Amino acid sequence: MINYPTPKKRPAERKVSVKNRGMRLEKLIDEANQYYLEHDLAVIHKKPTPLQVVGVSYPSRNKAKITEAYYRTPSTTDYNGIYKGAYIDFDVKENRTPSSFPLKNIQDHQIKHLDGVHHHGGVAFLLIHWHSDETVYLLGYEWLKHYLKRSETGRKSIRHDEIQSVGFAVKEGFAPRIDYLKAVDAYMEKDSSK
Amino acid sequence: MINYPTPKKRPAERKVSVKNRGMRLEKLIDEANQYYLEHDLAVIHKKPTPLQVVGVSYPSRNKAKITEAYYRTPSTTDYNGIYKGAYIDFDVKENRTPSSFPLKNIQDHQIKHLDGVHHHGGVAFLLIHWHSDETVYLLGYEWLKHYLKRSETGRKSIRHDEIQSVGFAVKEGFAPRIDYLKAVDAYMEKDSSK
Repeated sequence: MINYPTPKKRPAERKVSVKNRGMRLEKLIDEANQYYLEHDLAVIHKKPTPLQVVGVSYPSRNKAKITEAYYRTPSTTDYNGIYKGAYIDFDVKENRTPSSFPLKNIQDHQIKHLDGVHHHGGVAFLLIHWHSDETVYLLGYEWLKHYLKRSETGRKSIRHDEIQSVGFAVKEGFAPRIDYLKAVDAYMEKDSSK
Repeated sequence: MINYPTPKKRPAERKVSVKNRGMRLEKLIDEANQYYLEHDLAVIHKKPTPLQVVGVSYPSRNKAKITEAYYRTPSTTDYNGIYKGAYIDFDVKENRTPSSFPLKNIQDHQIKHLDGVHHHGGVAFLLIHWHSDETVYLLGYEWLKHYLKRSETGRKSIRHDEIQSVGFAVKEGFAPRIDYLKAVDAYMEKDSSK
């Protein structure tokens, strides 16, 4: 067994915790997207899971019941949409390793897709829920690319102090609880000031 | 029965026909998107159909078989992605009425979604395969909105001469057969020159 360092203590000022509420980040992101849509701030949706439908029956007129289907591997990330005129594309990750985020958590098709989006001028990133410090970090694609490059010859993960340094922490609030577009703002601002 | 006018004759110079090949426009758009992706021109994907999964069985380890699922109504259009830094969003329609395109072919959630995309600065449109003249037209959201507005008190469809005037005809070619990004170029150019 690996002897992980003791996780950092949760700051007292952070009242709402993703972890304590036992909700998966995806659900909170869906909630945020619903909020953004209703308040006319952005149009961002989760893509449905792709399924290969093999069998369908019609128990009643106009009602199709799928009787056999299988999960297919997606060719994109799970979330995309538009915000302030920009194409936004990201995936959501849960990280339960306190000391680092193992890069094997990211699938090849996701990397390829984010790379294409970034190349065509979109805003590509990961949202990583780091369970040990109960923080959600936005990690821009440029940095993800940097760490993937490093992993070819060295370390296969992103250290906690690295994500703290290069990531944008998503502040938790009331509505929406995970207001991740604020972190996108910070990221876009930094990006455009280069 | 409505006595439709005789459809216009197909121009002699157009060699490849969507109709004659008996392919649905969606399939040709998927083919075009694959081409754009492979040639690094754009990242545009069809969204999977949303399904509500009710029953799953595991006939073997690591293999999930869905035994009961139902189709759900999507909340967006079918296609989106990024092209030349712009957020692209559209839906595809088959129109078999020679004289006009009935607006009832567009669902409320699609209109609402395209309106949001347009509002946030995205490129929103329909691709309409007009069977009678074997042409695919790009109809920008502004014009769609105009005709929807008109339909509140008047005509509930877009006439053939109207789509010819305000739509951008997609030229058919070899690879991809439906090179719809050329029409998007023309549309974006017109849009930015306003």
